[in-house]
Amino acid sequence: MSSSEKQKVVVNTAPPYVALRPNDKLATVMTVATSDSSGGAGIEADLKTFTAHKCYGLTCLAALTAQTPKNIYSIHEVPREHFKLALTANMRDMRVDAIKTGMLTKNSVEVLIEALSEIEPTKRPALVVDPVLVASSGATLVSDDSVVQQIKLLAPLASLLTPNIHEASKLLGCSEEMLKLNTVDDMISRAKDLQKETGCPNILLKGGHVSWEGTELKGIVTDVLYTASNECIVYQSDRCDSKNTHGTGCTLASAIASNLAHGETLEHAVYGGIQYVHNAIQVGCEVTRSHIEENGPINHVYAIKMPLLEMVKDLCYSAHALAINSERELAAKDARGRSGSSSSQNSSSTSSLVSQIRDSGHFFEYLISDPRVKPHWESYVNHEFVRKVANGTLEREKFRFFLEQDYAYLDNYAQIHCLAASKAPAVEDFDKSVEIVTKIKTEMEKHREKMMSHFKIEDMKHFDTIRMGPALRNYARFFDDVAKNGSWVHLCAALSPCLMGYGHALRKVEKDITVDKDDIYYAWCQDYLAPWYVEGMEEGLILLDRICQMTDDWDTLCEIYAAVCKLETEFWDAALHYQESN
Amino acid sequence: MSSSEKQKVVVNTAPPYVALRPNDKLATVMTVATSDSSGGAGIEADLKTFTAHKCYGLTCLAALTAQTPKNIYSIHEVPREHFKLALTANMRDMRVDAIKTGMLTKNSVEVLIEALSEIEPTKRPALVVDPVLVASSGATLVSDDSVVQQIKLLAPLASLLTPNIHEASKLLGCSEEMLKLNTVDDMISRAKDLQKETGCPNILLKGGHVSWEGTELKGIVTDVLYTASNECIVYQSDRCDSKNTHGTGCTLASAIASNLAHGETLEHAVYGGIQYVHNAIQVGCEVTRSHIEENGPINHVYAIKMPLLEMVKDLCYSAHALAINSERELAAKDARGRSGSSSSQNSSSTSSLVSQIRDSGHFFEYLISDPRVKPHWESYVNHEFVRKVANGTLEREKFRFFLEQDYAYLDNYAQIHCLAASKAPAVEDFDKSVEIVTKIKTEMEKHREKMMSHFKIEDMKHFDTIRMGPALRNYARFFDDVAKNGSWVHLCAALSPCLMGYGHALRKVEKDITVDKDDIYYAWCQDYLAPWYVEGMEEGLILLDRICQMTDDWDTLCEIYAAVCKLETEFWDAALHYQESN
Repeated sequence: MSSSEKQKVVVNTAPPYVALRPNDKLATVMTVATSDSSGGAGIEADLKTFTAHKCYGLTCLAALTAQTPKNIYSIHEVPREHFKLALTANMRDMRVDAIKTGMLTKNSVEVLIEALSEIEPTKRPALVVDPVLVASSGATLVSDDSVVQQIKLLAPLASLLTPNIHEASKLLGCSEEMLKLNTVDDMISRAKDLQKETGCPNILLKGGHVSWEGTELKGIVTDVLYTASNECIVYQSDRCDSKNTHGTGCTLASAIASNLAHGETLEHAVYGGIQYVHNAIQVGCEVTRSHIEENGPINHVYAIKMPLLEMVKDLCYSAHALAINSERELAAKDARGRSGSSSSQNSSSTSSLVSQIRDSGHFFEYLISDPRVKPHWESYVNHEFVRKVANGTLEREKFRFFLEQDYAYLDNYAQIHCLAASKAPAVEDFDKSVEIVTKIKTEMEKHREKMMSHFKIEDMKHFDTIRMGPALRNYARFFDDVAKNGSWVHLCAALSPCLMGYGHALRKVEKDITVDKDDIYYAWCQDYLAPWYVEGMEEGLILLDRICQMTDDWDTLCEIYAAVCKLETEFWDAALHYQESN
Repeated sequence: MSSSEKQKVVVNTAPPYVALRPNDKLATVMTVATSDSSGGAGIEADLKTFTAHKCYGLTCLAALTAQTPKNIYSIHEVPREHFKLALTANMRDMRVDAIKTGMLTKNSVEVLIEALSEIEPTKRPALVVDPVLVASSGATLVSDDSVVQQIKLLAPLASLLTPNIHEASKLLGCSEEMLKLNTVDDMISRAKDLQKETGCPNILLKGGHVSWEGTELKGIVTDVLYTASNECIVYQSDRCDSKNTHGTGCTLASAIASNLAHGETLEHAVYGGIQYVHNAIQVGCEVTRSHIEENGPINHVYAIKMPLLEMVKDLCYSAHALAINSERELAAKDARGRSGSSSSQNSSSTSSLVSQIRDSGHFFEYLISDPRVKPHWESYVNHEFVRKVANGTLEREKFRFFLEQDYAYLDNYAQIHCLAASKAPAVEDFDKSVEIVTKIKTEMEKHREKMMSHFKIEDMKHFDTIRMGPALRNYARFFDDVAKNGSWVHLCAALSPCLMGYGHALRKVEKDITVDKDDIYYAWCQDYLAPWYVEGMEEGLILLDRICQMTDDWDTLCEIYAAVCKLETEFWDAALHYQESN
């Protein structure tokens, strides 16, 4: 064989900096539960959750199910002796920082209790017990009543018990109606009852199944943590409009166990768990075939990046010779920065989409006409806040709040332009970004002077103490996210609505500016109508025309544009509804 | 219950931008294999790998083992009927983009072949078969011979077969010696033989167990991919000096299957798989108890970040009231930027470590005296490259290569300072970074002018076409990594050696600068001895003194300093050993 037929590829990139220290003591979590072959719940969901939490996962299987969201087709109990050998081997040879239990069998509970009882209480790993009732999942291995008996035996050894309302009623030996959940305080009382009834020191009573119909809690998921020291934390999150909820119980308990294994406090571990499940439901995933109508699984990997994509973007990536598709190549160029200079990126400019745009005007017009963007753009540029500034009817303290938030926004805006500079594909783009940063700093100085004279602020330190409000936090968080995880093209799209929208909004009220010319309101309006601002907007138009030639994925650009227009609207909403007592 | 006893926490952060599109069709992979209770191999390793590759994992268990790295304590075969129900349920109700098989049983292979044969060849999911020989793992469920028979039945249905040398010899029906592996071409021939013998169109012959003693391939792992179109790719990577290799086979096959499920080409999928396993071995993890001396598992989660830590850093994080430890708080402040202003960070300056430094001089001295840093610092500041510039004996083309690489370095250095600005904890730090960026741009201009006149370069475009050499790529990659994943403090530590080292290196040869004063070499030497440069170094000293007060984790700072000193040394090495033919 001649060596000319073969291609040699060196695979030698060092592991990323995040792993500077080799042989780190990974936090470890063992799941004692049942396998769900379709991967949405059971030990599969547990292992996915441990992995997403940078934990090392171990298993001890009590039973196996052959199931999909549609049905449970088979259930097979693991022999007691095998279960016992797996459990004791892990406890003896492996480090186990935390244990999470899910669906168990009579045998497995007995063996587990035996094993835990042999360990000194202070040396036991953290134990999170998700008191799954088998009947509700359709399996018939054991009856609910016997499960309840088993959970009660296990609970005193546990660090945390995480029943939902259904499981709580069974554990308390009453019907769900008898729990009488009309207020949050009722939930707290039931959590306290559960603590007494089960002997488990900490109870997380999950309210996801409580509809709170007719109360102010409707649309909000309320979970209550009642702790060993009789403290109580009420966690509230918006109810997600998703049917993909299969596996939430397993996942929450596993996420909490992972956080505990990392050494977090219980309060924090629960916070992180709820947040992770909340996001995993909200993002969702589609992995069932089209004939399946039942609830699909949640998305355990929403925050994970594909290693191969990351490698291709890596400066030390050495397999450029291997065939990769054009989108990847572009992403890689984008990440490599200047080396894949702007000219090569412009070469992809002959796509049909681009000529379509050329015919119909600027890409900006395309963006604001997109049905996903249009309603948010309209609410943004026709905002009542602007109208009230223009006619002078806006309350002064609301304007002051706005100016302060806007000042903090500019601070963040400058940071984000630094990130844009670091991603710039061409030297000119880099220089442009640095220029903008300098301009923003100048504008902030003007801002400060204006506010100091108008609002009689004497101490410069005042500006360091401005607290970002929720609307600004959301906005800044989105910027940060796109700047860190998106490409330069995505970031340009995200930075555009602020520039374009203020100009358009002021143009819409230009004829109705009736406020006195000496008023700070008047000066504010004129700023966004000034020739220098209009010039900036024209540069903005050209930039959008350019970035649309650098990607075929205009959908994502529209989604980003829509999201930022919504954030801009909410930013003005926050000022309009500001009350000093806040 | 009065409401004053409870604490309310809102958990409502939107999922990150990476997941802008809800209900994404996650790539799905099903593992058909055996459970390893200790989590290092088997379906546990598979699920961890799928998750780390942003894939949705499904399972179909052929058997269960109770094992740890020390021993296999029990093995339990899953009944044929249950296995069949799990497999057919997944194939019918779930989307399965790829399948990976590991340790199988006679029953499971038969059922799998039956199920796959019912699917039209073009509609079959990608199938990666890792031909695990059970005997080598100590289990006795089936004999090697019968496994070989089973694999041969399955292979024609597979997309890829991934035998190691041991498995290859069994599949080819000969002893390992009879494979006669003395050169890479021998491996290619054996891969070709395997293709013929098994009927599997693509073969990845893994050379990890070949020592290549006495050949030039010693110390390098060589894997050979022989494809259906008779093309051959030779993948080479440095052999890792780690005993944590348990589960590498399962993990490689799972990583390849994940990449195929994402729609990658086979060549790329294999590249990504090898890289992932290489990193997972290199990073390693410690999860066994101290009495276990056997090979531990690899680290599947090396690139994953802890969700809770990310949440705490999030702008929209709303549980500040919950107790968190001070390190986390600091990280959060760092990430929140200006709002946790510099004064509050300085308040942690009273640690004993700091007073220890105060007694012994600058933190810089501490850093370069650390045993991890010292050898790298010494090689760096006593580099022969500098001595040869100073006495004029360095070949001109080597200096030219250096200047060009240094120009490209500055370009990158400016980008990284932009990232530093975006992370700056205080306004002054931000301004300082932007100031440095501007200075670097000026220096690049001077660089260009100098090189144009000295090397008679006429076309400015020349500077856009400079290709980064391997040493610079490694260096830039490290910067990029710290800038994106590290804190501002870490980034400051990474940016320091360049500034400090050049000054110190030149000071060491100051008395031996014998090159002509008109020479570009002379000017280069004087640049780093000039008063403005020394001033910069003094600012650098103060910055290091400041950052050491912002963290207790000086170990990481030392590791970063050592890593960058090594990269600087390699940068000069590359110039010193440059040959024009390269």
